Amino acid sequence: MVGRFQPFHNGHLHLSKQILQECNELIIAIGSAQFNYIYKDPFTAGERVLMIHAALMESGIDLARCYIIPVINDENNARWLGHLRSMVPHFDILYSGNEFVKSLVLEETFRIKKPDFSKKNEYNGTNIRKHLAAASAASATATVENWKTLVPNAVSKLIEEVDGVNRVRMLFNSDSNPQQW
Amino acid sequence: MVGRFQPFHNGHLHLSKQILQECNELIIAIGSAQFNYIYKDPFTAGERVLMIHAALMESGIDLARCYIIPVINDENNARWLGHLRSMVPHFDILYSGNEFVKSLVLEETFRIKKPDFSKKNEYNGTNIRKHLAAASAASATATVENWKTLVPNAVSKLIEEVDGVNRVRMLFNSDSNPQQW
Amino acid sequence: MVGRFQPFHNGHLHLSKQILQECNELIIAIGSAQFNYIYKDPFTAGERVLMIHAALMESGIDLARCYIIPVINDENNARWLGHLRSMVPHFDILYSGNEFVKSLVLEETFRIKKPDFSKKNEYNGTNIRKHLAAASAASATATVENWKTLVPNAVSKLIEEVDGVNRVRMLFNSDSNPQQW
Amino acid sequence: MVGRFQPFHNGHLHLSKQILQECNELIIAIGSAQFNYIYKDPFTAGERVLMIHAALMESGIDLARCYIIPVINDENNARWLGHLRSMVPHFDILYSGNEFVKSLVLEETFRIKKPDFSKKNEYNGTNIRKHLAAASAASATATVENWKTLVPNAVSKLIEEVDGVNRVRMLFNSDSNPQQW
Amino acid sequence: MVGRFQPFHNGHLHLSKQILQECNELIIAIGSAQFNYIYKDPFTAGERVLMIHAALMESGIDLARCYIIPVINDENNARWLGHLRSMVPHFDILYSGNEFVKSLVLEETFRIKKPDFSKKNEYNGTNIRKHLAAASAASATATVENWKTLVPNAVSKLIEEVDGVNRVRMLFNSDSNPQQW
Amino acid sequence: MVGRFQPFHNGHLHLSKQILQECNELIIAIGSAQFNYIYKDPFTAGERVLMIHAALMESGIDLARCYIIPVINDENNARWLGHLRSMVPHFDILYSGNEFVKSLVLEETFRIKKPDFSKKNEYNGTNIRKHLAAASAASATATVENWKTLVPNAVSKLIEEVDGVNRVRMLFNSDSNPQQW
Repeated sequence: MVGRFQPFHNGHLHLSKQILQECNELIIAIGSAQFNYIYKDPFTAGERVLMIHAALMESGIDLARCYIIPVINDENNARWLGHLRSMVPHFDILYSGNEFVKSLVLEETFRIKKPDFSKKNEYNGTNIRKHLAAASAASATATVENWKTLVPNAVSKLIEEVDGVNRVRMLFNSDSNPQQW
Repeated sequence: MVGRFQPFHNGHLHLSKQILQECNELIIAIGSAQFNYIYKDPFTAGERVLMIHAALMESGIDLARCYIIPVINDENNARWLGHLRSMVPHFDILYSGNEFVKSLVLEETFRIKKPDFSKKNEYNGTNIRKHLAAASAASATATVENWKTLVPNAVSKLIEEVDGVNRVRMLFNSDSNPQQW
Repeated sequence: MVGRFQPFHNGHLHLSKQILQECNELIIAIGSAQFNYIYKDPFTAGERVLMIHAALMESGIDLARCYIIPVINDENNARWLGHLRSMVPHFDILYSGNEFVKSLVLEETFRIKKPDFSKKNEYNGTNIRKHLAAASAASATATVENWKTLVPNAVSKLIEEVDGVNRVRMLFNSDSNPQQW
Repeated sequence: MVGRFQPFHNGHLHLSKQILQECNELIIAIGSAQFNYIYKDPFTAGERVLMIHAALMESGIDLARCYIIPVINDENNARWLGHLRSMVPHFDILYSGNEFVKSLVLEETFRIKKPDFSKKNEYNGTNIRKHLAAASAASATATVENWKTLVPNAVSKLIEEVDGVNRVRMLFNSDSNPQQW
Repeated sequence: MVGRFQPFHNGHLHLSKQILQECNELIIAIGSAQFNYIYKDPFTAGERVLMIHAALMESGIDLARCYIIPVINDENNARWLGHLRSMVPHFDILYSGNEFVKSLVLEETFRIKKPDFSKKNEYNGTNIRKHLAAASAASATATVENWKTLVPNAVSKLIEEVDGVNRVRMLFNSDSNPQQW
Repeated sequence: MVGRFQPFHNGHLHLSKQILQECNELIIAIGSAQFNYIYKDPFTAGERVLMIHAALMESGIDLARCYIIPVINDENNARWLGHLRSMVPHFDILYSGNEFVKSLVLEETFRIKKPDFSKKNEYNGTNIRKHLAAASAASATATVENWKTLVPNAVSKLIEEVDGVNRVRMLFNSDSNPQQW
């Protein structure tokens, strides 16, 4: 499975379990690995590796069946599958609901399978980052903390350890990009 | 002449003919060559080469007088003319209506000539991509197919061969970028 | 101090003086050095070096105490401080009001000091570029020339020498990007 | 620990075990991740991830304590530690015998520990690639197969699965670079 | 067919003719398009396009059946075929004597055909560049001009037009790289 | 003047003085700015800025007449002059003994002037780096310290401050590249 995992949420965890029921091994490719400290991509690749590793472990998944691999973007989309294949172990199935990934696949070296995400509007990176930005702005009442219900417990702990709530709030203010002063 | 040619349309073809009346040879530099499978740049450089080659041939132009060359972007605009010159054969005239290309030209190694485009609002990449996105969404009535009147016949055939109408529709939905999941 | 300096304005000059009162030497790092001839970044790195050098000299600052250094962006923000450090002489204090630069600083090799900018809404690159774009569009009355009151005299002279007012107006029209035809 | 792991050999495995005796967790950063199909870097990042994962598993190591992460090179060495830190989880100790890594470390956020490699002349990527190139050229006698004694069993199986012996021999002939015809 | 064409020589022309006897159309992909003014790659992509175009025309080949396309290198070899495919029109056969191109081909979207080059030691870029470097150093006797017998007549004319003999001699002296002073 | 200045030596200082006698202002462009901690390029761009600044000041040169600017390499040589021009202030004369820089100059916006270097075999970066590598290996006798006679006094002080002698020795051992383990 492929994603940016900003952050890794319950929908991702659910899909991980589903794949491990259907396949021997699971590869989680972390896209946009070079981006971090921007609102759309607040966490570094290393932090995302840590989140995913901890969330899988917490839910009892055997890490010996999993590969968690950061992948830099490729500006040439038509070349992206070749790029991905060079960075991860060989795979037979690509889980993707993205309808035009199919048009990129010119050959029959692997199958595409559509994941079934539940609660797609809640378990959704864009939605969770909005909650994070709001949580830090507001006073710490129970209601503003509901982003925690959308991610695995291990992920919410790690986000707090790296002061991620404040980070997302700051990045929400676009003036905060250090290279855009 | 320089353009992104997403896709190559009747206005481009008209300018090609005009240039070949005024000059011995025509160089068509295809910009943003590295981009594809995004809404603004749906077709690969290779597909665009094919479209242009076929459209010129269809309209009876002598290909021996033409050069069709994909060119990667240069993020440093002030360096762009040097970049362009290294990628294409020597040229004496640059056809451009872009008023500030002149400010990039520091020396007198070539002239700039303003092309006269007719029907600029219709023969226009942005407009044609909108038509393409709408065509695939709607039922296939005659009215929705009017994008075909805006491009050479050879181009509309090639767009259909690569299932370009569906591709543009999918890309219109920004969620479809494979690396932005 | 770090900035894009598009252009170098009175607020920047004020901060330069403040730093030279508090420190032996001043390093001015010009960010986004590779960008130019776009509305957000109209001037080349070389032009910005010239503006800053001239503005400091005009206001009587000893250039022997100053370093003016263009720095290319780094797409990986978490790596940015290491990037900056490799491009400029060693420094002990980073002047920055940007609240999350602190979170990038993992170690105690330098201090961060908050600059006090006055008239932040006027002495502000975004605001000045708007004035420049409007100045060239309007007839040359006294009122439209008020961008000149926001930058050092030496800077306004240089902007006029490179026909910067017209350049900014052209770039304000996004169609003018030579590589986006 | 950091390396190119072309291929992962007994010395690397030995160090992995040593680190896991001294630390809670082990991060294996695979450098030069973007290179492959050249003599010095024959295996893709994905193949190297697979080799390392399999070798650790084979020797009974708990994968839940390990992170195996490909890292693209950074041409700016002075920025390399910041680059590395953005790509991997936080670490407290960097195992490195490289004497000048110390000079890159400007602050005290982690310690450097010198690994003790045994049989450094044999358990050595350069040496093993020479053996691989020779193995495929010669007839398959017992003597030419001694590269297998230098790598974990799981690694030698994977090298054979991807026809790695022939690949290394072809790459040894520098004319074989597909982009250098 | 793929090559660097530094310069386009009689062996390349021979292969072009052979392909056009066996196929409807010929695509000539010019690799390392971004390199020039180094000894190994003396000519710009634009100059090479011009050479090839002129050589094909001179030998009576119908340019309407040919595509001549510069292609930037891709540092990731495993991704190279995807890169190539995005830059050129669709192809069914790749002419290549390079034995490991086959190992890059994971699927059956095209065939690989081995070209038969004659006089491979003479009709060879490395050999011709040596002759060029020697030609300019020596006095202009008949014997030193034998590089002209190795390339099509149209190519030797273009090399002389851009003062290519002197260029290659200068580049042969590695001190001449402008960015390596 | 353009150079890598690894390190800035007496020949460079001599040329700086010569230029300031012939011109109003001097621009020193530091090439290969992105490289450091390799044997051929041991010092960071920032360290080289510091060396040059200090050496000019020490010899009584008015810094208000000088610009010291790091410039990243451009892999496309034919585009290099455009690259350089975008990074430094406008110039009228380029001091260069490099014979083929002339062939890159297509227009008459500036003149090229040949510098006269004295003692070119001694005042030479390659030679000085050899001395530095040897100095640190040998015992600290007077004879091994003769690299100090080849660079300005201010430069030798800065090299010692950053422990440059040991750095060059380590880098001389190619195994020391942190990303090539």
